[in-house]
Amino acid sequence: MAQHNAFYAQSGGVTAVINASACGVIEACRRHDDRIGKVYAGHNGIIGALTEDLIDVSQESDEAIAALRHTPAGAFGSCRYKLKDIETHRTQYERLIEVFRAHDIRYFFYNGGGDSADTCLKVSQLSEKMGYPLTAIHVPKTVDNDLPITDNSPGFGSVAKYIATSTLEASLDIASMCATSTKVFVLEVMGRHAGWIAAAGALAGQGEGDPPHLVIFPEIDFDRAAVMARVEESVKKCGYCVIVVSEGARYEDGTFLADSGNTDAFGHRQLGGVAPTLAGMIKQDLGYKYHWAVADYLQRAARHLASKTDVDQAYAVGEKAVELALDGQNAKMPAIKRISDEPYAWTVEAAPLADVANREKFMPRDFIREDGFGITEQCRRYLAPLIQGEDFPPFENGLPKVAKLAKHRVERKLPEFKL
Amino acid sequence: MAQHNAFYAQSGGVTAVINASACGVIEACRRHDDRIGKVYAGHNGIIGALTEDLIDVSQESDEAIAALRHTPAGAFGSCRYKLKDIETHRTQYERLIEVFRAHDIRYFFYNGGGDSADTCLKVSQLSEKMGYPLTAIHVPKTVDNDLPITDNSPGFGSVAKYIATSTLEASLDIASMCATSTKVFVLEVMGRHAGWIAAAGALAGQGEGDPPHLVIFPEIDFDRAAVMARVEESVKKCGYCVIVVSEGARYEDGTFLADSGNTDAFGHRQLGGVAPTLAGMIKQDLGYKYHWAVADYLQRAARHLASKTDVDQAYAVGEKAVELALDGQNAKMPAIKRISDEPYAWTVEAAPLADVANREKFMPRDFIREDGFGITEQCRRYLAPLIQGEDFPPFENGLPKVAKLAKHRVERKLPEFKL
Repeated sequence: MAQHNAFYAQSGGVTAVINASACGVIEACRRHDDRIGKVYAGHNGIIGALTEDLIDVSQESDEAIAALRHTPAGAFGSCRYKLKDIETHRTQYERLIEVFRAHDIRYFFYNGGGDSADTCLKVSQLSEKMGYPLTAIHVPKTVDNDLPITDNSPGFGSVAKYIATSTLEASLDIASMCATSTKVFVLEVMGRHAGWIAAAGALAGQGEGDPPHLVIFPEIDFDRAAVMARVEESVKKCGYCVIVVSEGARYEDGTFLADSGNTDAFGHRQLGGVAPTLAGMIKQDLGYKYHWAVADYLQRAARHLASKTDVDQAYAVGEKAVELALDGQNAKMPAIKRISDEPYAWTVEAAPLADVANREKFMPRDFIREDGFGITEQCRRYLAPLIQGEDFPPFENGLPKVAKLAKHRVERKLPEFKL
Repeated sequence: MAQHNAFYAQSGGVTAVINASACGVIEACRRHDDRIGKVYAGHNGIIGALTEDLIDVSQESDEAIAALRHTPAGAFGSCRYKLKDIETHRTQYERLIEVFRAHDIRYFFYNGGGDSADTCLKVSQLSEKMGYPLTAIHVPKTVDNDLPITDNSPGFGSVAKYIATSTLEASLDIASMCATSTKVFVLEVMGRHAGWIAAAGALAGQGEGDPPHLVIFPEIDFDRAAVMARVEESVKKCGYCVIVVSEGARYEDGTFLADSGNTDAFGHRQLGGVAPTLAGMIKQDLGYKYHWAVADYLQRAARHLASKTDVDQAYAVGEKAVELALDGQNAKMPAIKRISDEPYAWTVEAAPLADVANREKFMPRDFIREDGFGITEQCRRYLAPLIQGEDFPPFENGLPKVAKLAKHRVERKLPEFKL
């Protein structure tokens, strides 16, 4: 059969395992070199395609590609750049097709979250309209776990494992210290719109009364008095209190806790996240000594503690993307399908992009305990398998070894394009 | 020979490997059961001795004790409770001897930092004065790495490995995102008085221009203009800037950055650490989009990423403490002695407590680069061996397995004692 080239790009916030998906895509392409010629990667995501800034992945060694599996973040560069609707941004969509045509790219693999699923679908539709034979496949990725259809979003399981482990470890720390020192520990986690990551913190506790004693979800209106009552109860009963709070925690009126409108002495907006804000409230209302941590990028970059399940799934959706493309299945997303909870069994199936784009998966209300401060057994059954297994990277000189790519650029063939 | 009991207590801020020292002490005691009868642990450190709240370690299984080696934090409880000079607190010192006498405790193992070394020495001196035959050994521990004589302080190497790894991982994250999004990432680390932990962040960079681009030490006066110039230079050259900042970063007049005296709209002291403060300055002066993280307890509890060197040393000083005690060496601390940098070779030798107590080890000025924003080769040679090797704990259900102790209490024999 005729041989054509493939294009791969990473989109949006990166994860500990998005490069494992890249590895899956690239290795599968290499296995099918009768039909797929070169793989080009967009330098800094879709911007690389628009500006014809392409990395020739075929010049990377097999070892370098294999190392992507254990390298966090986006090895080819990602971007936050959303193509709007075709009417507004038609020249951009057309430019994509133009670049694809110039480089004989017939396979488009777009690795991202909800927005990129939408872009992928539109590119597919426009190429059809323009009569350019393109197969567009979306490879799912997001720590937010908000993609529909797929059992979970690759990237989430590793953040979940990191947050559950960190909560467990920090809980042991404060438990040791609480007799004479810190009484409250607050860990702020990502997830502005949904409490999936906060929920994962609850996996640290396995029995009644185990920390974390409170999980604060963006889905539940923040009620200061109710939270304080629970903190006080926990300190009185256990001697300390561990709280996992979502960065998206908000009041009934929708205002974020972290966005309190406070200003400092110079009139600047008060800095700082939810964790210090909440810790300050606790100090003020209850007088307890506190510590707080904000994991931020550490949580989504922590490849050293990735979930093996997550790594395997990230690789599998990348690999499956290529198989679907070669099978002529256009405008699809390889989705993870859960076959059973325990033992956890899963497979990867194709989902139509039209069903994926512009739909978000929220935490079901029955995943959150009735009191709003913890997870239900149903939620635990869903989450527990996602953090199973370890897949430690190789270490060198005490540090994780990461892929070193040569990133040879492809010669440009088209006139410059302004974004 | 006659058999007597031993007492072990944990003191001050805990670490990822203080329980590995406990494991070393207890397993060595068990191997010498001809001379050491029971091991009693202080519940919540020295407070446990004062209040006669003793845990009978002899009732813990060998498996539970072995699991201490991979369990972070203080399994028997620690405390921040400093005994003052003997004149002021004489009744407390006498009470300690009284409790030791009541329970036939002739070996005192005190696992902590500088303050506990001092307490250990005083207890030893008073017992001699009172004619009670006690052998007192201090087991070194502190993430601050400020104990003298010993090559490093057990607990530090694991924090160093965690911070270096987290800096590396987060740097890959921001490098992927910087084309269209975050330009500056700030990681706040522990170390209020010395920059040892901040220095460890620099191990993430191995070549010229590698992140972190700035390390901000408490030893170097914070010069806002100089810092901003470097941040701007880094963003212009590399596209982004990674900063590791010590919680102890301070201005020339000694004021901490985090302690800016700012107040919020309600007149409360502004919350938040150095990282958000510095990030806010960068936004204000340079306009860059930023992310920041505060690792707090996560860094010192991260047993999942402990340095094997650190775990081995923590165990070794615990074991050696018992050997010294049985050898009749009173008022000593097992200190790590570096034999060579590369390959790293070390041994454990006895140091007189009189030389340890009330002396702090600061970062030598020639460990900090002349410009004040990074480490020298000399510093790297010192630090690099301390993060070598991995010692992953066993995992169960996706989470690190930790020791579960029964913590049977010893029956009290003395009247109550008020602290």
